[in-house]
Amino acid sequence: MSCKEMTLFYSPASPFARKVIVLLHETRQLDNVELFDVQLSPVSPSGDVIARNPSGKIPALELANGDTLHDSRVILDYLDHQHGGEPLIPRDGAARWQRLTLASLADAILDAAILIRYETFLRPKELHWPTWLDAQQEKIERGLAELETQAASDRLQCFNIASIGIACALGYLDFRQPQLGWRARFACLASWYEDVSQRESMRSTQPPA
Amino acid sequence: MSCKEMTLFYSPASPFARKVIVLLHETRQLDNVELFDVQLSPVSPSGDVIARNPSGKIPALELANGDTLHDSRVILDYLDHQHGGEPLIPRDGAARWQRLTLASLADAILDAAILIRYETFLRPKELHWPTWLDAQQEKIERGLAELETQAASDRLQCFNIASIGIACALGYLDFRQPQLGWRARFACLASWYEDVSQRESMRSTQPPA
Repeated sequence: MSCKEMTLFYSPASPFARKVIVLLHETRQLDNVELFDVQLSPVSPSGDVIARNPSGKIPALELANGDTLHDSRVILDYLDHQHGGEPLIPRDGAARWQRLTLASLADAILDAAILIRYETFLRPKELHWPTWLDAQQEKIERGLAELETQAASDRLQCFNIASIGIACALGYLDFRQPQLGWRARFACLASWYEDVSQRESMRSTQPPA
Repeated sequence: MSCKEMTLFYSPASPFARKVIVLLHETRQLDNVELFDVQLSPVSPSGDVIARNPSGKIPALELANGDTLHDSRVILDYLDHQHGGEPLIPRDGAARWQRLTLASLADAILDAAILIRYETFLRPKELHWPTWLDAQQEKIERGLAELETQAASDRLQCFNIASIGIACALGYLDFRQPQLGWRARFACLASWYEDVSQRESMRSTQPPA
């Protein structure tokens, strides 16, 4: 559906899609991918996406041969195998699973933040469940505390798969929970995020205002 | 916390943990792992788990060096690097991302089924949202239709990372939605599942009655 090699189905507000675009930037593959913007929510799926990914979720990456890859982790893994630079996901060794576990924690923070968004934005107000919202928010707080420990011990230095996930998770928290005030409680993480936010890959992929 | 090399925090009812135990069976690594049964839900987390995985989710795999890996995909990837047999996740090539995408679809079916479970089992009845439940159920149905296509074209033959995910997803549907009747609509998938259910790895990891 494009003269480019691949088509990424995404939304500028999706933090999972943002991870993919940040990796495309960092590995200089952006020119190979057509970006196809879709509107969707869990209760109003996109026909364009469903036709390629039955789960209905974005990001989904259509390849030149017509196959479509999903979800974000699979796409990140694929794209990290397609460039000639240092892999952002080490191919083996302890660093591989340490970084993937941190990336998984970032995804868990995102999952919790997105469930909060669905509850407060999509679900009718009279059906909100405060216990659920509190539990998801506590998960985010525990995740941020762990990331603070990582940042404080300088374990987030290079911009790899874990850093991309963490940066996109923090960006999503700022986007959807601007009142959270996490920087006051997690100063090392805030300093790290301030730094990585200057990268072109992060500046050019900020969620819509 | 054990004389074995690794400790897996799990629950017999968790389909994500089941994937890990099935892979341990299939790759003959079960003897290396102590199974630690935990009780938890999103609104009542386990202290044992949170101490090792701030997201509070299972499965979580504690290694001999004290590091803990999560979530299920990261653990599966790790364990698939620790045995000498044919990898269940191909290390490279088109088959790698085709299988990981199918495994991701199985996870998406599980995520939808688990969200339905949380809504109908945990959330107070007066706060249920039928539109949400319908949307999750439709996602499951679309996923099953895609898996039927895969089964009909014999693309699920060997028991690899995709097959493990799909088999555990179908097992979870039978466990939590015994009334679903998916076999009548997806006959090839039913036949495939009947076959793989005979494997020792599947028989010995069935969810509790």
